[in-house]
Amino acid sequence: MFIAVDAMGGDHAPREVVSGAVQVAREQGTQILLVGNSALLESELRRLGASSLKEIEIVHAEEVVGMDEPAVTPLRKKKRSSIRICADLVKKGRAQAMVSAGNTGAVMISAKMVLGTIEGVDRPALAAEFPNPQGRTVVLDVGANVDTKPSQLREFAVMGHFYSQEINGIHSPRIGLMSIGEEETKGTGKTRVAFQVLQETGLNFVGNVEGRDVFSGSVDVIVCDGFVGNVLLKSAEAVAELIKTMLRRELQKSPLRQIGALLARPAFEDLAKRTDYREYGAAPLLGLRGGCFIAHGRSNSTAIKNSIRRAEEFVAAETPEKIRAKVAQLHNEEKRLLGDSEL
Amino acid sequence: MFIAVDAMGGDHAPREVVSGAVQVAREQGTQILLVGNSALLESELRRLGASSLKEIEIVHAEEVVGMDEPAVTPLRKKKRSSIRICADLVKKGRAQAMVSAGNTGAVMISAKMVLGTIEGVDRPALAAEFPNPQGRTVVLDVGANVDTKPSQLREFAVMGHFYSQEINGIHSPRIGLMSIGEEETKGTGKTRVAFQVLQETGLNFVGNVEGRDVFSGSVDVIVCDGFVGNVLLKSAEAVAELIKTMLRRELQKSPLRQIGALLARPAFEDLAKRTDYREYGAAPLLGLRGGCFIAHGRSNSTAIKNSIRRAEEFVAAETPEKIRAKVAQLHNEEKRLLGDSEL
Repeated sequence: MFIAVDAMGGDHAPREVVSGAVQVAREQGTQILLVGNSALLESELRRLGASSLKEIEIVHAEEVVGMDEPAVTPLRKKKRSSIRICADLVKKGRAQAMVSAGNTGAVMISAKMVLGTIEGVDRPALAAEFPNPQGRTVVLDVGANVDTKPSQLREFAVMGHFYSQEINGIHSPRIGLMSIGEEETKGTGKTRVAFQVLQETGLNFVGNVEGRDVFSGSVDVIVCDGFVGNVLLKSAEAVAELIKTMLRRELQKSPLRQIGALLARPAFEDLAKRTDYREYGAAPLLGLRGGCFIAHGRSNSTAIKNSIRRAEEFVAAETPEKIRAKVAQLHNEEKRLLGDSEL
Repeated sequence: MFIAVDAMGGDHAPREVVSGAVQVAREQGTQILLVGNSALLESELRRLGASSLKEIEIVHAEEVVGMDEPAVTPLRKKKRSSIRICADLVKKGRAQAMVSAGNTGAVMISAKMVLGTIEGVDRPALAAEFPNPQGRTVVLDVGANVDTKPSQLREFAVMGHFYSQEINGIHSPRIGLMSIGEEETKGTGKTRVAFQVLQETGLNFVGNVEGRDVFSGSVDVIVCDGFVGNVLLKSAEAVAELIKTMLRRELQKSPLRQIGALLARPAFEDLAKRTDYREYGAAPLLGLRGGCFIAHGRSNSTAIKNSIRRAEEFVAAETPEKIRAKVAQLHNEEKRLLGDSEL
């Protein structure tokens, strides 16, 4: 199994990306196709004493997609970019998943158009994980789609189910539908239809949930429209940042507070670790023929290492095949029902 | 000016509500109609040595709407409930605004149906305030509506503008449209139309914003659909709670951390104060003929006091009249434009 890693993507590329790739190759023997400017990557590997590491193979890419370029760039203007070549490698079967901390829109659209969606799946969904007191809540979609149809939300539920099961080890993931009240009748016209549709999936659908459930541990998976999920993701990151900034400022205001902060520092570090996206690695784009993990632009080597690890687990668990089989089953049941009703 | 206060609403009613009302009456002479079971309220006032306080007048209400009763209860089954009577008092002009920490849905629907919307305003919007490094961001709607039309978002912008100006003292509030990318072309069909509509308002519209802008201080007002705003509100509250819980747990893990936490305690207290909804008081339901402030169900006396204070400022600034005038101006401009185009 090979993971294609976009060595040119992210604020700290290629240095941190190469370093993360070398770490995971050394620690667990992950086989990596490192995609980017070969001269640059060779020199980074030399710097890390990893030139002869047999797990890492360089694939040259002469172009790079900038963070501010249009999402379609790898499909049109820059077909020799590292993002596009990563997607091509997965498409050709040379790699089974790709990891990139580059331009999120460009990675999403390249993966979607080059890899294609799983048979029976209409739209891919970007998933994000949030901490809760017991573990993690997977929320999808967080930005790949807007104006999601109920049937698409059902597909997201299937994707979230297997992701939570295979990657987070939850036996029977509890799935919630994001709404603005717990009763079945609450929400929009679309969420009310989605409620009915989700009840018929055979998944562990527990009903409507609210914004607070993302962080409560009451469910393992939450499905929602990408507009709502994106606002949620970005605002939650910002709240956490704001609280840390304000606390840091408060802790500097007197010598006594400073001493207290010093003594309690390990507590802050442990908390930071629990709430830091870098520990979670990347957001998976689910529903594709192959794996695609989109890491945060600010990813350091730890984030890259964890992202590659996730991608490897994802492929090893044959998650796309499981999603395909379940979606096919749901489609077949629907056809049977329609057939019966015609009798 | 009188503020009608629902003394029976909230988890800690009537005790905390009466106590908050007495505080604000004593501190700044606010005139209050305290609505609820008169025997109960008299005894609470006695307990606080406030029986002879001339600023507070009791208005008897024989019924109470429970937190789990349907939102329509005050309109149908319980017309003698404290929520309904508060709305009736504002409608009749006996009070200029109402404050309740009771059943949110019931307060919203009572205020909307009994007071009615301002002339030219289609829908009321519930506004919430969030902390940012420089001050506060007003977000509306956070739950009064779903499937909001662009013309309604324009009305929300007008309401948010005057609220931010009059209550938060911002000279020219910067208004953002919630979307999932800053470019004009990002978002849904509805947000793209709203973008165009908002540009024509003459307000300080700065364009699309994202979830992170709620907490960054980049804008003073953000307009969005109530579904999105409600998820945002509830998830942001939950993140803040989760971080506090996790930090508390981490700080208990060793004696050294405990000592550190003790020394730094004032920093935590100052932070808690800055991020605590109780300090902000209530969420205003804007766009109505009169003031309606909905306090958190868990409100203590401080939250009630701050809510009543807000309601008073709101009325004193003649906010509803300002909203009416601006909405009328926008409607007139539209008519003129339509008239021109027919020539």
